[in-house]
Amino acid sequence: MTATRHIHLARRPKGVPVLDDFALVAADCPDAGEGEIQVAALIMSVDPYMRPRLDADQPLDVPLLGGGIGRVVQSRNPKFKEGDLVRHGAGFQELFVSSGRGVQVLNRDPALPLSVYMHALGGTGITAYGGLLETGALKDGEQVFVSTAAGAVGSVVAQIAKIKGCYVVGSTGAEDKAAWLRDEVGLDAVINYKAQPLAEALAAATPKGIDVYFENVGGGHLDAALPRMNVRGRIPVCGMISTYNGGGDGVRNLFSLIYGRIRMEGFVASDFGHLNAAFVDDMTGWLKSGQVKYQETVLEGFDRAPEGLIGLFSGANSGKMLIHIAD
Amino acid sequence: MTATRHIHLARRPKGVPVLDDFALVAADCPDAGEGEIQVAALIMSVDPYMRPRLDADQPLDVPLLGGGIGRVVQSRNPKFKEGDLVRHGAGFQELFVSSGRGVQVLNRDPALPLSVYMHALGGTGITAYGGLLETGALKDGEQVFVSTAAGAVGSVVAQIAKIKGCYVVGSTGAEDKAAWLRDEVGLDAVINYKAQPLAEALAAATPKGIDVYFENVGGGHLDAALPRMNVRGRIPVCGMISTYNGGGDGVRNLFSLIYGRIRMEGFVASDFGHLNAAFVDDMTGWLKSGQVKYQETVLEGFDRAPEGLIGLFSGANSGKMLIHIAD
Repeated sequence: MTATRHIHLARRPKGVPVLDDFALVAADCPDAGEGEIQVAALIMSVDPYMRPRLDADQPLDVPLLGGGIGRVVQSRNPKFKEGDLVRHGAGFQELFVSSGRGVQVLNRDPALPLSVYMHALGGTGITAYGGLLETGALKDGEQVFVSTAAGAVGSVVAQIAKIKGCYVVGSTGAEDKAAWLRDEVGLDAVINYKAQPLAEALAAATPKGIDVYFENVGGGHLDAALPRMNVRGRIPVCGMISTYNGGGDGVRNLFSLIYGRIRMEGFVASDFGHLNAAFVDDMTGWLKSGQVKYQETVLEGFDRAPEGLIGLFSGANSGKMLIHIAD
Repeated sequence: MTATRHIHLARRPKGVPVLDDFALVAADCPDAGEGEIQVAALIMSVDPYMRPRLDADQPLDVPLLGGGIGRVVQSRNPKFKEGDLVRHGAGFQELFVSSGRGVQVLNRDPALPLSVYMHALGGTGITAYGGLLETGALKDGEQVFVSTAAGAVGSVVAQIAKIKGCYVVGSTGAEDKAAWLRDEVGLDAVINYKAQPLAEALAAATPKGIDVYFENVGGGHLDAALPRMNVRGRIPVCGMISTYNGGGDGVRNLFSLIYGRIRMEGFVASDFGHLNAAFVDDMTGWLKSGQVKYQETVLEGFDRAPEGLIGLFSGANSGKMLIHIAD
């Protein structure tokens, strides 16, 4: 038995979550029993998709649902050995015991930092890859608009589209992120939607219209994109972060779907298991060659997970928001 | 040269069109020249899709764009003979001359009234057929919700879905239309959205969710349907009549698209030319057997076309709104 800590949802947030919606709770972790492993958390991920769950699916007073990378510290399960790096979905626990279900050994490429397996080579990466190439059915050279293009998903979407020879416009809400997208990533146009009227800026930035709008935001972003969509355009719907905390305007331009024969379609990362081998090959190569760049915002310390999650909704992150616990 | 009449758009409507937005204009129609035909209008169609055009695509002071059925009264074109019934897209003219482009001879089944070629066997019919079966990818036995189910498109959609063994819920805005859908058409549930709170009524009427929502309305209808959609559900988007005159609420529940992997997709009748032969065979059979029933609201007299078009937005029509000019 070892002392450890959990993060619980203490009460359901009203609107944007606040720190008091969460609780840091002391707990005991048993040793691994027969067939079990004990895992120490190294890195945890906070993601926008976690917000809607706080209203319903996430039980109160149990570890917050979520995924991370850990190291096996005890193994009585033949599939794992002590020291293995693993991906897990065990939620926000510093130390935990598992039967091994839902835990996968991580085959890390030693040339890449471990943290990329939490974004470009992790859930946000395959979300971007599958959402753009499969749901969005991107064709080489098309006109692409990516919302929250400096975010963990958006930045990978934008760079895959560039690799595919597309004209790529990205939106972001801060000047430093806009500069990164323009100067480091090399997008064709970048819109700071907090500094410019989005609809006008998007119209000016998309003289050939939009074939694929990768939707992370909803609301005003969708209303700005819809009238710019080309015939038979596609809107893969990955997220609608502007709507997660309530409020915001409803969407008024859906009429554009009709004459444009636009397809809007939702998806989640787990839809793309069949793409995983191709994704890992492609993305490992793109990261090593520098064709896919990334930013990370890393908060140090297990107890800062609520702060990290809350920060997503004010754009406190540049790129992937991570919680670092141990090496 | 023969005296005739046209209906023009005199000015762009603000919100719901009013009679003064249109003008009845005297004109002269020349005789058919070499290679031409002269056609007398018999029936004309007014349709919701015409409203958005009044804001932009429809020029002022020329015949209102639209389609109808006419009879060839002069022919100097070998593809047509005098007396032929034809479909045309020549717009709102009592008598007109055409090169024959965009004019097709109508092969009428003598057992059916001519007017059905303006709806169930016309543009609204193939819109319903293609939108439901191809864009909506309907499978036998699915759960279906149809908005404006007593309308020209909706009533055909609802009945095709019944023929395909589906559970079908329809919405309409008047009690007489609801009674027709319940008692004559035999839908599984009918919601009068002006008499009941739509979202609650739809939830109660769809205990197994919705696999296909056939969208004619937008706004509150879409917001009510989205949370009821089953995983991998489809929303073929035919129209959004609630939005055509401005106003109305924006759509707030699009987030449901994501986890449901819902597909929304727009279409127009002309997408389904490849289905036309199958459509005519199927629909002719369904009409003759009584499996597809219909209602018509027929206004007598060429000059009443503006009244008919305006009436669509208050639900003045039961089923297809037609303007009858001559037999």
